[in-house]
Amino acid sequence: MAGWARAVRGLLLDVSGVLYDSGGEGGGAPIAGSAEAVRRIKASGLKLRFCTNETQATREKFVKKLQGLGFDISVAEVTAPAPAACRLLKERGLRPHLLVHDDLVPEFAEVDRTNPNCVVIGDAAEKFSYANLNEAFRVLIGLEKPVLISLGKGRYYKETDGLKLDVGAYMKALEYACDVQAEVVGKPAKAFFESALAEMGVPPEQAIMIGDDIVSDVGGAQQCGMRAVQVRTGKYRPSDENHPQVKPDAYVNNLAEAVDMILSQM
Amino acid sequence: MAGWARAVRGLLLDVSGVLYDSGGEGGGAPIAGSAEAVRRIKASGLKLRFCTNETQATREKFVKKLQGLGFDISVAEVTAPAPAACRLLKERGLRPHLLVHDDLVPEFAEVDRTNPNCVVIGDAAEKFSYANLNEAFRVLIGLEKPVLISLGKGRYYKETDGLKLDVGAYMKALEYACDVQAEVVGKPAKAFFESALAEMGVPPEQAIMIGDDIVSDVGGAQQCGMRAVQVRTGKYRPSDENHPQVKPDAYVNNLAEAVDMILSQM
Repeated sequence: MAGWARAVRGLLLDVSGVLYDSGGEGGGAPIAGSAEAVRRIKASGLKLRFCTNETQATREKFVKKLQGLGFDISVAEVTAPAPAACRLLKERGLRPHLLVHDDLVPEFAEVDRTNPNCVVIGDAAEKFSYANLNEAFRVLIGLEKPVLISLGKGRYYKETDGLKLDVGAYMKALEYACDVQAEVVGKPAKAFFESALAEMGVPPEQAIMIGDDIVSDVGGAQQCGMRAVQVRTGKYRPSDENHPQVKPDAYVNNLAEAVDMILSQM
Repeated sequence: MAGWARAVRGLLLDVSGVLYDSGGEGGGAPIAGSAEAVRRIKASGLKLRFCTNETQATREKFVKKLQGLGFDISVAEVTAPAPAACRLLKERGLRPHLLVHDDLVPEFAEVDRTNPNCVVIGDAAEKFSYANLNEAFRVLIGLEKPVLISLGKGRYYKETDGLKLDVGAYMKALEYACDVQAEVVGKPAKAFFESALAEMGVPPEQAIMIGDDIVSDVGGAQQCGMRAVQVRTGKYRPSDENHPQVKPDAYVNNLAEAVDMILSQM
């Protein structure tokens, strides 16, 4: 029954919808049993990496919020899209116009943003106003060769007050308006999972991804050769179980149940 | 040289970018020579229909603005998406949640909007806030069989203060988030051009569409068997002349030049 959990040395955990349900500005509520589950993973000797597409805050602020909710987590354990995007921008000499949450801007402190030659879009939430989206659009359409970099391509996520559109929806709007294809940094990009695995020092066949997103978490991790488990928390919807392309290695009701099964196989 | 203009009995004119450049709230500026060009068409005995995807105002308000800018135009001469959408909603017993400009809402006065079972999206402009887009998204994702009706699918348009994202970009955002395909009412839908032709009483082979949008105006009209001319005003961009799918029957610098050529062939 829990054959999917065998011979594992490292776990990648999605955060929002797995550890907690986010609640907009600084808020959120832990999912029952998840803080204890993180402690049990750490006590077990398994390697652990938090692999998130969170772009509403710097990693520092994000981690502080999670610590406040009772989680044992540090900045050094988090793989997130903004630092990956900064590396890419520097490598290619790109100067971004940022359409991101105010609280993420400090992650780009060392990037030249004068005279932009690309647009970086993240989960800007309330900043996704008509005016701000038009501004990003005008930068893109004015470039001879438009470059759009998207921090994830999630469709939506769940906050304590309901489902919210994620960056992927706005990425699609700009893609269509400018007739370009975005380059996605973050899950489900293969390079993103690979850097998380490298940071853990665990090969894909010995790692399991645990997430609530059938495409970004499960599909992306499986593409990298990992096993992937979908939790029935967060944005999980029963219709995910009939997804035409992606089939998780297992379903679990929540993170605590996943950890029970994995530890019982060790 | 002007062979494209022969044997014509009726003209379909796009409005924004052909007659005038719109300017947000109630404003705009006529394109030089276009008001005179409309008068010359009417004096020539050619049938004339204004075929617009405008959804920022009721036809009454829209026509009043154009009259104020010096155009000879009446409500009865205008084919627009909102009335076409109302017919479709009634035929199929659909009750819309509206994500449209405040000024368009009166067009839906006779439609039941309680307990919505579909979403209608138009060019909502400033109303395209994060909160409003989330609200429409939640209605859609909550339906057993999501139905999204889009009043046009334009990528962007030009106002006096610059390019603005059009309804098509936001339609794509909702399509992606909810994994649905929108039904488009308005240009370039074939049924929309056909109803404009029927209202004129002219068959497609005797009609010419004049527009600034290579896809919605030119491509859509050609699909219906009409000739179509692109003006180099409004949202026209030189790169349109290398469009991979659509090739107009002719380019003209503006409406006045198109009318010169057409009348010289009569």
